[in-house]
Amino acid sequence: MRARDLLAPFPTVTFDTPVIEAARLLADQDLPGLIVVDDRGLPSSILPGTQVLRLAVPGYCQDDPTLARVVDEQHADVFLTSLAGRTVREALPVERRELPVTDPEATVLELAALMARTHSPLVAVVSGDRLLGAVTLQALVDGLLAP
Amino acid sequence: MRARDLLAPFPTVTFDTPVIEAARLLADQDLPGLIVVDDRGLPSSILPGTQVLRLAVPGYCQDDPTLARVVDEQHADVFLTSLAGRTVREALPVERRELPVTDPEATVLELAALMARTHSPLVAVVSGDRLLGAVTLQALVDGLLAP
Repeated sequence: MRARDLLAPFPTVTFDTPVIEAARLLADQDLPGLIVVDDRGLPSSILPGTQVLRLAVPGYCQDDPTLARVVDEQHADVFLTSLAGRTVREALPVERRELPVTDPEATVLELAALMARTHSPLVAVVSGDRLLGAVTLQALVDGLLAP
Repeated sequence: MRARDLLAPFPTVTFDTPVIEAARLLADQDLPGLIVVDDRGLPSSILPGTQVLRLAVPGYCQDDPTLARVVDEQHADVFLTSLAGRTVREALPVERRELPVTDPEATVLELAALMARTHSPLVAVVSGDRLLGAVTLQALVDGLLAP
């Protein structure tokens, strides 16, 4: 079994997609994360769902649990309002890390190691200059355990 | 909206659960991760799905993509066989990190910050000495975006 056998089409966003729209895509399609593509349609960044959340959390709350605690439920609106108008570009992390991207020939072991190492529940599959789709954690585990 | 409004019952595993059974639970119930409980039924470790995969990847392949590449599809069986007999205890990471655990009063912002910081798509909710359930990334995003 190779990546080509496990991949499925996967929706993408661009740098200009509003963050709120990206969050809705994640929620509506029950996605484990998002693929951000560049002008050529190739993966430029891949955000696990937990890191999409990061886009929505004010910096002063990221690392201080006590500050996050004092923002009560009446301020959840503020939380969402703060997203309005922000695009994926503005919200992307600055650091560059290994992207969970591979080719159709990747083995299941390679896919598992890549997901584990990058903490990403999805891996984009690229052939030449074309994004073929993605292998999700769920598809990989299902494939591995299939009789 | 608080953690108590977003939580749902969540299956747990113990240190003695075989890794293969833990993987099947993840696949069959489409879980974003696993909660490992101690003798008292309280969360001792919380593994995102990507880190459950790590339990299944031989050490020599974790950080070396070229080694993972050379293990071809005929060796996927070996990959699974290597799991046989291993329990969650043997496979848990050694390092101790912040656990994504909170109480029922946690705000949505607190939940989002905790998931982002710990890279965990689930947060266990504990009240006193009882595990009430978990808030998943999906439940949180759905709750945040609900009209």
